[in-house]
Amino acid sequence: MSKLLTVVEAADWLNSRDGFLIVTHQRPDGDALGSASALAQGLRESGKTAYVLYNDETTPRYVRFVEDYWAPTGYKAQHIVSVDTASYNMFPKSSAEHISSVSLCIDHHASNTYYAEHTCLDETRASCGEVVYDILMALAGSISAACAERLYVALTTDTGCFVFGNTTANTLRVASLLIEAGAPHRELNKLLFRTRTRGRVKLEGMINSGLEFHFDDTVAIAAITRDMMEQSGAVEDDFDDITSLPGSIEGVLVAITIRELSSPHDCKVSVRTGAAVNANAICARFGGGGHPMAAGFSKNATIVEITCAILEVLGEFLPSFE
Amino acid sequence: MSKLLTVVEAADWLNSRDGFLIVTHQRPDGDALGSASALAQGLRESGKTAYVLYNDETTPRYVRFVEDYWAPTGYKAQHIVSVDTASYNMFPKSSAEHISSVSLCIDHHASNTYYAEHTCLDETRASCGEVVYDILMALAGSISAACAERLYVALTTDTGCFVFGNTTANTLRVASLLIEAGAPHRELNKLLFRTRTRGRVKLEGMINSGLEFHFDDTVAIAAITRDMMEQSGAVEDDFDDITSLPGSIEGVLVAITIRELSSPHDCKVSVRTGAAVNANAICARFGGGGHPMAAGFSKNATIVEITCAILEVLGEFLPSFE
Repeated sequence: MSKLLTVVEAADWLNSRDGFLIVTHQRPDGDALGSASALAQGLRESGKTAYVLYNDETTPRYVRFVEDYWAPTGYKAQHIVSVDTASYNMFPKSSAEHISSVSLCIDHHASNTYYAEHTCLDETRASCGEVVYDILMALAGSISAACAERLYVALTTDTGCFVFGNTTANTLRVASLLIEAGAPHRELNKLLFRTRTRGRVKLEGMINSGLEFHFDDTVAIAAITRDMMEQSGAVEDDFDDITSLPGSIEGVLVAITIRELSSPHDCKVSVRTGAAVNANAICARFGGGGHPMAAGFSKNATIVEITCAILEVLGEFLPSFE
Repeated sequence: MSKLLTVVEAADWLNSRDGFLIVTHQRPDGDALGSASALAQGLRESGKTAYVLYNDETTPRYVRFVEDYWAPTGYKAQHIVSVDTASYNMFPKSSAEHISSVSLCIDHHASNTYYAEHTCLDETRASCGEVVYDILMALAGSISAACAERLYVALTTDTGCFVFGNTTANTLRVASLLIEAGAPHRELNKLLFRTRTRGRVKLEGMINSGLEFHFDDTVAIAAITRDMMEQSGAVEDDFDDITSLPGSIEGVLVAITIRELSSPHDCKVSVRTGAAVNANAICARFGGGGHPMAAGFSKNATIVEITCAILEVLGEFLPSFE
């Protein structure tokens, strides 16, 4: 049974120990990498030895924030601390040999499985970065500019720069304090939220002009072919958040994005819904799953075949078409 | 000569008077209408009579926030208060007969011309709503949910929901307090920032595919013709924030949007820049103005003529092309 710690207790726990290795989940996002690097930085400022376990799925966009903290080969940690990771099976396969047991888990997911010896969880926070902020404030009483920058990345990437429904008064309050502590918010906002490559712009245009609408325009289907990827010149970082595009259109309750992977017969499907429709249930029908409003599945079939298969069953899941 | 008032002095000034008519600029945006309606609401809560002058250019998106405050026909105001309006010639023509003189101007534009008898200006604020917040706090010591909702509209629409370069620690601090005071931020974010009409999507596609790049791709020019407006089916509300599109492209330092208004010879130009280039100075050259990173002007000329005129002088304002 995991022992629950308050943020003050977690700060005390960290303060009375040394030799930390910070780990986070597969396909790490800004909250995972920002929280991990801010915690490492804050612990170092308190005189501790702290590193982040190298994660080979880190995308170019986030490398600059975390690269100074990667653990050197052979580093022998005394204590493993995880951030932003709800369950043990979310760690990358490449990390498995380093993560036999986690001493402290710092998280904000209500779905946390309490896999760690100690858990400091605040599921009211929009980002894990807010929990790390509370712990670092309890530990040191102030936040350095280097910590503030990384925590700002954590807060903003999990909330779409404060626009998603998970944003709270606390998120904005902490963000305000991080800016006062020296987070370069203008540069970060520009880098993370206001820079589209020409490839991304082209890709968005192709997706938007190819959108199909069904069920009285309450269902939007976006197709991303390998041909579109090639023509637009888009790279993997350009696909960040692309599944939110069709769902932003007025009146759309179910947004489906079908993307060709290795061949036209190998597709990844993302389903995004509002509260009225269960995305998880739709994807479960095709062997996939996820959350009630964001789920997905993979299928060895073409975009047209998948579209037809989805449209055949979708009526069952729509409130007005049952 | 206008007398400058601090926010506390402005609150005292309002508190010792009654019978207000609040006026704002032509083509009013969320900051103008949110500031005006929040001020009217706050003054009413302090026992005052306060109305907002009807502005026939108010778009459907913002009507709900301000319609309860429109001044009835024949209302005789004792004092005219302007919000978010930097100069006298920014008032709508339809307002002219009501605005012979302005007693108090509340604003955040550094380009304010001090046309009012008294001026309460804080050019460090991202939105006029932040200045109104300070005044209402000085007036009453707290903010009602009705004021908070309208001020949240003001803050977010002027900062693109906290992502634009004008956002400050104060913007986020006040926004956090507004949410605590009852601003329904989730609904407002969805309405104002996460819903695109099909017309808007089409319009974005047309703008993106017609973008022109100059000065080693550091300058992007977007043209919006009346024809594009018609073909896309976009309505006025669909133009919110459209000027931020070209500036979101990687490497762009100056983003210019030229939009045809009543005819192809009547255009409105918006200039958005990073910190390295002064948008206000560029627009001043054409008789316009605004903020250092967001300014504009109007011109009786075609898109091509305006493009040529801008390109001719732009080099002077670009650090690498001086």
